[in-house]
Amino acid sequence: MTRVKRVQFYEVWMPLKAGFRTSFGETRLRPAIIVGVEDESGTVGWGEIVAGEGPWYSYETVWTAWHIALDFLVKMIPEDGDPEKFIASAERVRGHNMAKAGIEMALWDLKARLEGVPLYRLIGGVRREVRVGVSIGIKDSVEELLEAIAYYLDQGYARIKIKIAPGWDLEVVDRVRKEYPDIPLQVDANAAYTLLDGPRLKKLDDYDLLMIEQPFHYSDLLEHADFQSMIKTPLCLDESIKSHREAVAALRLDSARIINIKPGRVGGIIESLRIHDIWSMKAHRPVWIGGMLETGVGRGHLVALATLPGVAYPSDISASDRYYEEDIVDEPWKLQPGSKLVAPDKPGIGVEVDYDKLVKHSKRTKEVRLH
Amino acid sequence: MTRVKRVQFYEVWMPLKAGFRTSFGETRLRPAIIVGVEDESGTVGWGEIVAGEGPWYSYETVWTAWHIALDFLVKMIPEDGDPEKFIASAERVRGHNMAKAGIEMALWDLKARLEGVPLYRLIGGVRREVRVGVSIGIKDSVEELLEAIAYYLDQGYARIKIKIAPGWDLEVVDRVRKEYPDIPLQVDANAAYTLLDGPRLKKLDDYDLLMIEQPFHYSDLLEHADFQSMIKTPLCLDESIKSHREAVAALRLDSARIINIKPGRVGGIIESLRIHDIWSMKAHRPVWIGGMLETGVGRGHLVALATLPGVAYPSDISASDRYYEEDIVDEPWKLQPGSKLVAPDKPGIGVEVDYDKLVKHSKRTKEVRLH
Amino acid sequence: MTRVKRVQFYEVWMPLKAGFRTSFGETRLRPAIIVGVEDESGTVGWGEIVAGEGPWYSYETVWTAWHIALDFLVKMIPEDGDPEKFIASAERVRGHNMAKAGIEMALWDLKARLEGVPLYRLIGGVRREVRVGVSIGIKDSVEELLEAIAYYLDQGYARIKIKIAPGWDLEVVDRVRKEYPDIPLQVDANAAYTLLDGPRLKKLDDYDLLMIEQPFHYSDLLEHADFQSMIKTPLCLDESIKSHREAVAALRLDSARIINIKPGRVGGIIESLRIHDIWSMKAHRPVWIGGMLETGVGRGHLVALATLPGVAYPSDISASDRYYEEDIVDEPWKLQPGSKLVAPDKPGIGVEVDYDKLVKHSKRTKEVRLH
Amino acid sequence: MTRVKRVQFYEVWMPLKAGFRTSFGETRLRPAIIVGVEDESGTVGWGEIVAGEGPWYSYETVWTAWHIALDFLVKMIPEDGDPEKFIASAERVRGHNMAKAGIEMALWDLKARLEGVPLYRLIGGVRREVRVGVSIGIKDSVEELLEAIAYYLDQGYARIKIKIAPGWDLEVVDRVRKEYPDIPLQVDANAAYTLLDGPRLKKLDDYDLLMIEQPFHYSDLLEHADFQSMIKTPLCLDESIKSHREAVAALRLDSARIINIKPGRVGGIIESLRIHDIWSMKAHRPVWIGGMLETGVGRGHLVALATLPGVAYPSDISASDRYYEEDIVDEPWKLQPGSKLVAPDKPGIGVEVDYDKLVKHSKRTKEVRLH
Repeated sequence: MTRVKRVQFYEVWMPLKAGFRTSFGETRLRPAIIVGVEDESGTVGWGEIVAGEGPWYSYETVWTAWHIALDFLVKMIPEDGDPEKFIASAERVRGHNMAKAGIEMALWDLKARLEGVPLYRLIGGVRREVRVGVSIGIKDSVEELLEAIAYYLDQGYARIKIKIAPGWDLEVVDRVRKEYPDIPLQVDANAAYTLLDGPRLKKLDDYDLLMIEQPFHYSDLLEHADFQSMIKTPLCLDESIKSHREAVAALRLDSARIINIKPGRVGGIIESLRIHDIWSMKAHRPVWIGGMLETGVGRGHLVALATLPGVAYPSDISASDRYYEEDIVDEPWKLQPGSKLVAPDKPGIGVEVDYDKLVKHSKRTKEVRLH
Repeated sequence: MTRVKRVQFYEVWMPLKAGFRTSFGETRLRPAIIVGVEDESGTVGWGEIVAGEGPWYSYETVWTAWHIALDFLVKMIPEDGDPEKFIASAERVRGHNMAKAGIEMALWDLKARLEGVPLYRLIGGVRREVRVGVSIGIKDSVEELLEAIAYYLDQGYARIKIKIAPGWDLEVVDRVRKEYPDIPLQVDANAAYTLLDGPRLKKLDDYDLLMIEQPFHYSDLLEHADFQSMIKTPLCLDESIKSHREAVAALRLDSARIINIKPGRVGGIIESLRIHDIWSMKAHRPVWIGGMLETGVGRGHLVALATLPGVAYPSDISASDRYYEEDIVDEPWKLQPGSKLVAPDKPGIGVEVDYDKLVKHSKRTKEVRLH
Repeated sequence: MTRVKRVQFYEVWMPLKAGFRTSFGETRLRPAIIVGVEDESGTVGWGEIVAGEGPWYSYETVWTAWHIALDFLVKMIPEDGDPEKFIASAERVRGHNMAKAGIEMALWDLKARLEGVPLYRLIGGVRREVRVGVSIGIKDSVEELLEAIAYYLDQGYARIKIKIAPGWDLEVVDRVRKEYPDIPLQVDANAAYTLLDGPRLKKLDDYDLLMIEQPFHYSDLLEHADFQSMIKTPLCLDESIKSHREAVAALRLDSARIINIKPGRVGGIIESLRIHDIWSMKAHRPVWIGGMLETGVGRGHLVALATLPGVAYPSDISASDRYYEEDIVDEPWKLQPGSKLVAPDKPGIGVEVDYDKLVKHSKRTKEVRLH
Repeated sequence: MTRVKRVQFYEVWMPLKAGFRTSFGETRLRPAIIVGVEDESGTVGWGEIVAGEGPWYSYETVWTAWHIALDFLVKMIPEDGDPEKFIASAERVRGHNMAKAGIEMALWDLKARLEGVPLYRLIGGVRREVRVGVSIGIKDSVEELLEAIAYYLDQGYARIKIKIAPGWDLEVVDRVRKEYPDIPLQVDANAAYTLLDGPRLKKLDDYDLLMIEQPFHYSDLLEHADFQSMIKTPLCLDESIKSHREAVAALRLDSARIINIKPGRVGGIIESLRIHDIWSMKAHRPVWIGGMLETGVGRGHLVALATLPGVAYPSDISASDRYYEEDIVDEPWKLQPGSKLVAPDKPGIGVEVDYDKLVKHSKRTKEVRLH
């Protein structure tokens, strides 16, 4: 039992190596709010709020998250820093999962550091090495995409995911498959279609894809169920799964065969564990961990989650150098042979924040003293 | 605002190029009632009542339709010719959708001509070119069917639909698929089966069909739901959907994934739009437009409906020369490259009735003066 | 085994004692088509087609029925006059249940007469006395309705049914119940409402009604199911049940607790027996027999059906003098003490047609010679 | 066709007459963002963003709404001010329905004022008088609640809604029902229960309630469906219905019988109309309009929506003096005999903003010049 004394918030804007284009548009600077929770011993646990610049992937932006975290959530941190208690209190706030997750993950890191155990072991991980893949955005031409794929395969990534959108789909997949008949390949639609596109999208069944990710609207569990019953390729849900509630509903309705768990999207590690446990441990359906271009802090939490037993597909957690010129942690995440990242055998997430780099990229900071 | 003065009815019997056989039998002369509604300016809007010679596809025949149209419906045409008002009044008449539709479509054509806009734009169409396919009846032998398919593919039709019935189903589909592994293919059962055939019909799942149309009785939304849950191929409802009410019920029961909208079957354009809007715009399920061997007049209405945004499969609207030696309109409908028909850029349905040909094929005519 | 030689059709227009108003309007002359099927021995079996003057209760009118019966159905009568074979052949004709029923019932009467047994015993009846009630139309004032109720109670009818429609419902039922707190009372809406009226109609639960008949559209089994789950009073389906198919669906969806079987509506005695057997014998739900202002001929068939074991509510079969000045049978149906009619202990329906009266009320007749 | 020149935003904090307590807590000052859209002629249309002080009813707060409206949405207002175009553009912003609705409603008011027609007629309303009820929060004691009910009944409100929450439910309803056996009564749970409470909540069936509003979590359409199948009292969804998508899903899953439409919650008038049309016009299920303690501006939009044909229960729109000492419009909304409010027969929402009062209650204002 400890006593939480201080919480620091840093709004960073990280320069990306190259623009990353999805069906929402292109990104050049990636904002994030880094949360540090310090206890009376001076130990700091780190978390990351992954809200974006605009309300494109979810309604949360870095401004809404700052407001909710500072004006409401920070006061709900219990004196002993227990993440379960925090989440129970934070249930009063409807939504704002990314803001909640950033604080809750900091509390988990703090707890692991104080107990002197790696986070991945504290939450039930069963391996240190996690298989990962790379996600490639929409390009100006198929040639450019093929070049990018060649580059990442050369870097050592064994699974390739490509973004699709109306006008950039069947023909692109066809070309990629012809060039690379055997690589593990999946597509991600970020909710850019409706079931009216079903008859055409059904043709994706011919390309031996690992999965089709989130083809339809994030409120349409029934449309996904209709489409899943029409195709053999497994559907994977992303935006639709905002908590264990949607995971249970998707199970009952058979909306998909796979879930991509993003801790920011679902509100943190506790909710990620709930989804993991119901979906993979009880219903024996695979999950994997999705990334949101996290810095080295958030990436540490993703790696810890990817060590869970039900994670049966490569996760979307690239090395730091996939996105960033420089990371804000002392040991940037590096791809290991076999398309893997490795959870460090150190307390907490296993990496230390580099304060100089953190401050260098911060646009605003705020400190809150508690208890 | 105008004033409707005169309504003309022509019962035509159109010679077919070749017999067209379905599970109901064979047809050599196709009757129809052509409806012309004339306003005070002398402008005439045209519609077509698609009731057949006998009560085989629906309970309506050309005689029941003549009786209901002349004795009840014609008096319900409002002075200003507004189709919405007509349909509201005609609700008192239970059933007889084909008779209602023929008059209502004439009112729509009149309205579009008076406003000087193409019908397809008046009702919310979003494109001028509509993809179409051809429907091929039951033949004496599979060889004859394969010849017919070859002929229509050669004519330019890109999607083939074949009629099936007990004794003419799995083996036929198997032969056709072997001969043409890649063509877009669908089957239409015209309610010739019961769920007792389900285990056997389930094998159709192996032939990559676009859809299976109306396998069961037109009152069996629950049987369709049971079967849809057993197969991956989408079911499409035809006879079962008599109005938006059955479309809502089929949605709630998940009886099918697709609806074939025939304006005659559902009572006209307004009801077609209601079904289109609920099923495709709100529930994101595809629809397409079905034909009943219409003359060039009715065909014009089908093309207009096929321009709606939710029409996501090729419609059953062939060129005039698919069925008829000569059409009764000035510009018979012609197949365009890419298996398409094109909605004319002229007021109303975009074609003019050829009075000489209309009278030549008429068996009886009647004129009613109103207002 | 016999041989059917001749079929006679009489279109009669029977003067009603007083107008009978429902939510469709008022009736003064009731048309019907009386069907006589004669075999080689000169024995004649009688049936009645109950189609109305206009398409208000169903799409069938006396004209559509004449057309379908004469042009299609009469040729489907098998040489031996077997009703089962006739119905199997007539399945090819979609719909037109009233026309089918009139011919099929004549075949049943012929069969019973040739076998020398009362019809009620041939079809499985278990009693001779059947409980009946009276159905009272919409009146100009509640006072007039109360007078009518008093009159019929005085005549000996023990169960009263009143028609309701928007604007003639809750207040009327309230007044009737206050005047007669204890009589068996039920209401019939003839599909005049939608579920939007549900909250208001729910108040009918307070009046201890035997049942609410057909509140919603004849295609809305799901609306009825929704409403049945909201109220304690049993719903009874009428227009919705066009065959055993809808009876099975209504059972699965729990759309109602009771069915009113009208042989004309469902296509004859065989289909009535199917519905009776599934609904009451298998699912233990009550049925009763509904009337359509039949003459003495049709009334004989109704009485026979009302002797079936699953008929557990009083049927809508009044005495002849309830509607008509004079009947066309030799022994008009008379109300017996205990609000009952009695199935005669004579062959067939147990009454003889009075040819003079039949011809007197006929507007057109037609004879068809067969086999 | 006009040209939008200027948009004004006023963040007002309106003093409430007395605290209003729900399961979320108590409120003394009600914030809102009043939106005025001005065209080149100087005509101003008014809307209201109903986001609250904290993220308790939804994730939107007055700060998140200010940020999204000013930084993203205002730029999406089309030059001609067409609400449909605005909503189509605003689809890119995920969520933030209240912010969208406030701007869209201002565009509707502007459009109606420019066309010189009352808003209620522009959107398809069918009556001017709308039935309303009062909603009463949680009190310190049942006695206090009974006093409040007596007070509002005395004021003329005919339908009473009380908030319930665990610990303030069955006993309270029992006491209220005993005191007032006949008043139209409904309860609102604001998602405070889970299906684990189902067996206990089922006892609410004994109190003849109009409906039970939103018992479970706003993501639990399946829990609501399970519970609806266990009870006779209709369930009504509130928070669960964020757009027409959830309305379609709730229909397919039978999650409830009734929807409470709040334009702020669903993103404006266009989406309200979509839900209204599918749910009540096509599926014949009743809806009503819910309020969020709007000022006289938002209240005008609620009244217009409550004139739609499918609104079949009294709406939650009290008179201005139910909540506020003074309103910011020239003619505060007054309760009329029969528990009604009346849509004014004037252009737009029919009331004028009192600029002095608007400014007096504003905490911050912002003007944006466009086009």
